[in-house]
Amino acid sequence: MPLTTEYAISLANVQAAAKRLHGFAHRTPVLTCHALDSIATTVGDGDAKRLFFKCENLQKIGAFKYRGALNAVTKFLQEKQQRGEEGDTTFVTHSSGNHAQALALAARDAHCKAVIVMPNNSPRVKQNAVRNYGAQVVLCAPTNEARQETADQVVAATTGHFIHSSNDPDVMSGQGTVALELLEQVQQEYGVTLDAIIVPIGGAGLCSGVAMAAKSVQPDIKIFGVEPTGAADAYNCFQKRQLMGHTGPVSTVADGLQTTLGDKNWPIVRDFVDDILLVSDDEIVSAMKLIWERMKLVVEPSGAVATASVLANKVPDGLVNVGIVFSGGNVDLERLPW
Amino acid sequence: MPLTTEYAISLANVQAAAKRLHGFAHRTPVLTCHALDSIATTVGDGDAKRLFFKCENLQKIGAFKYRGALNAVTKFLQEKQQRGEEGDTTFVTHSSGNHAQALALAARDAHCKAVIVMPNNSPRVKQNAVRNYGAQVVLCAPTNEARQETADQVVAATTGHFIHSSNDPDVMSGQGTVALELLEQVQQEYGVTLDAIIVPIGGAGLCSGVAMAAKSVQPDIKIFGVEPTGAADAYNCFQKRQLMGHTGPVSTVADGLQTTLGDKNWPIVRDFVDDILLVSDDEIVSAMKLIWERMKLVVEPSGAVATASVLANKVPDGLVNVGIVFSGGNVDLERLPW
Repeated sequence: MPLTTEYAISLANVQAAAKRLHGFAHRTPVLTCHALDSIATTVGDGDAKRLFFKCENLQKIGAFKYRGALNAVTKFLQEKQQRGEEGDTTFVTHSSGNHAQALALAARDAHCKAVIVMPNNSPRVKQNAVRNYGAQVVLCAPTNEARQETADQVVAATTGHFIHSSNDPDVMSGQGTVALELLEQVQQEYGVTLDAIIVPIGGAGLCSGVAMAAKSVQPDIKIFGVEPTGAADAYNCFQKRQLMGHTGPVSTVADGLQTTLGDKNWPIVRDFVDDILLVSDDEIVSAMKLIWERMKLVVEPSGAVATASVLANKVPDGLVNVGIVFSGGNVDLERLPW
Repeated sequence: MPLTTEYAISLANVQAAAKRLHGFAHRTPVLTCHALDSIATTVGDGDAKRLFFKCENLQKIGAFKYRGALNAVTKFLQEKQQRGEEGDTTFVTHSSGNHAQALALAARDAHCKAVIVMPNNSPRVKQNAVRNYGAQVVLCAPTNEARQETADQVVAATTGHFIHSSNDPDVMSGQGTVALELLEQVQQEYGVTLDAIIVPIGGAGLCSGVAMAAKSVQPDIKIFGVEPTGAADAYNCFQKRQLMGHTGPVSTVADGLQTTLGDKNWPIVRDFVDDILLVSDDEIVSAMKLIWERMKLVVEPSGAVATASVLANKVPDGLVNVGIVFSGGNVDLERLPW
């Protein structure tokens, strides 16, 4: 698994992202939980497990997405300045989820405009959250085609800069900073070297960034992506060793993981991820509730899939010290899935 | 406000407790939240507020109560050893809440037995949580008299050692360690000196310990206890300058704050606390929900009262840097108060 230039990002990109994020994104805490360790040990292979939770639900906007958005925004503006270009910049994306809020806040932090294309069936509370960060919301029909088409129109009309939620090297590099911090914090605060990191995989911005960063720093570490059975495109890609979209209807409680992989992050997932694990919606909700009860942390369904894979004994034997990414905590408290 | 020996505890007791807890209780994180700072600033006197949240909901058993219980258990065993006494020790208390779990775990950690007297109408999930920590549960009628009487009988039968949930100097000293950590963490991690600390007040174990510790270390700091209007005994004590119980029926969503002050902690509350603030159940639930939504932290109603007092503008003008204690996070996720 040599590090070649054929991949969209390298460790150096992730390290540069870490510098850009320093002092702006939160260095989120890494927490542990005896109760979850016990359960993981009991359901597992008998080895005493220690789980280290990277709490990106405590990140700005409540999800890791702020990292990628801020890195992409900052890097674009730095390069624009280096080119001596002047004038306002408008950032554009389409998203119904956490990336919408992330780009809105990242643009605001950089004193730039943002226009976010959202499907017209996205909850008003999410639309308002984006507007509260000062972004303009443009609604479109709830299809992938309409989203991209509308975003293209906005880019043309505003001469804006489009930032995809996951299939963008700067976004992937930003998300990879999660791994650099996690490895460092576990070492510094607990004196432990991780055997594995388990992350949710949706559009694979997080998974590809984490895999590239972690394997570059510590080549023997195992990286697992976890996906709901109801949106198993990454699993199918991984089995067939080729990039593909969904092959059937998508249905999962983990709404953040419905997106598909892209041409920039797929080669990294293919070559740097050890396996894609599947969890059912029941396993996700059960893990999510356990995290709320035992760790007193609000995680969204997508944020609980990595824990679900451990508690449902989907991970390979022989792993003792396991890093887990709580990717986000944005849930509607009026509509909990239990 | 001279520090005399007439008070049940001194700073030295709290410092000794901190040593006993070191490596056993969690040094819980101090977190901040821009969104809550903004709201607090908007509703307040115009000064930009910065809130620093001491997350005792992330403490073992999900509440600060573990500190006091562990300090009392450890100190008792140390003194017993110094006296050269041998034989097993059984720890006894009555509690329907977090102290029950705290003493059960503290006793287990010390390889001792615990018998917890619980009212027979306490939720089975709470009884089971106590049993899961290895303690024996003895049920009694749901009155204060029956609780004390039954506990007395258990103490006699087991030659056990009774540890009250709040009116016990060792418990108060243990809870005071919250303040030592909070002051130190805010200084070290944020470079800030607090103007005030706001804590929930129920039985006043936490409030008295925090007040004694914080005022001893930093005499100009303001200390506020916050109580629900539906269980306003501390407020009444403070107004009348005399120890008294409830004067009417008790009704509040903050079930952890229904208990009354005692002879050991009242003099400290009277002389070291600057004011007792009242918040309504609506204000508590609204603050609790906001904490879950914005901070992604599960806090119980009792744990949200200090935040409620800030968001409902019940605190005096002129406070900028305010420490707030999230006292606990044990809630029934099937029965949320919104």
